[in-house]
Amino acid sequence: MTDSPEEARVLRPKFGPDGLIAAAATDAATGRLLMIAWMNEEALRLTLETGEAHYWSRSRRALWRKGETSGHRQKVVEIRIDCDQDAVELVVEQTGPACHTGRRSCFYRVVGRDRNLSFRE
Amino acid sequence: MTDSPEEARVLRPKFGPDGLIAAAATDAATGRLLMIAWMNEEALRLTLETGEAHYWSRSRRALWRKGETSGHRQKVVEIRIDCDQDAVELVVEQTGPACHTGRRSCFYRVVGRDRNLSFRE
Repeated sequence: MTDSPEEARVLRPKFGPDGLIAAAATDAATGRLLMIAWMNEEALRLTLETGEAHYWSRSRRALWRKGETSGHRQKVVEIRIDCDQDAVELVVEQTGPACHTGRRSCFYRVVGRDRNLSFRE
Repeated sequence: MTDSPEEARVLRPKFGPDGLIAAAATDAATGRLLMIAWMNEEALRLTLETGEAHYWSRSRRALWRKGETSGHRQKVVEIRIDCDQDAVELVVEQTGPACHTGRRSCFYRVVGRDRNLSFRE
């Protein structure tokens, strides 16, 4: 059995120089990408222990539990790690919209070749 | 019309202090998350101009066109930007596997509460 990040059977997340790892939340029902946020070791630990998505806010420099003020929490059905262990996917049951703007997903705008944005929601 | 990042109608990506933005590639056919990688301004520009996914490799510190050596290219069907314009979603037609290990998606392992990993592919 190899010990490479790709074939390892134990989690060894590769946090960046800022101590963070990218986390994508996808909808358990539809598979759709809902949001991309960040986790430090504590956010990852709390997510694993509680089954509720926790993230690190780079702008507020604070740990947060998704939905702690909005109520739009994420129940984690499954956590997946990528090949080189520097990104995670949270498969979630999303209560209400994932986006703070009230849209279902944060990715509600399409970028045109001219860099103009079209709204999809 | 407001000028907030959330409601803006023109792309103004918020690159991080390292000049990079997170990019998630999702499968146009299934919606499934395939991989998370990074883009600098040039990678984003080339992706918009050519319709082929380009990324920035943090480990190799180099621009790369997805598939340039493996042939596993990504034809970009749609580029989406998130609410605060610090992450993009590339909806792609993926040739072959997205992951360099030969798996369809890079997220082929599930993290248990005990941090052991189970392979799904």
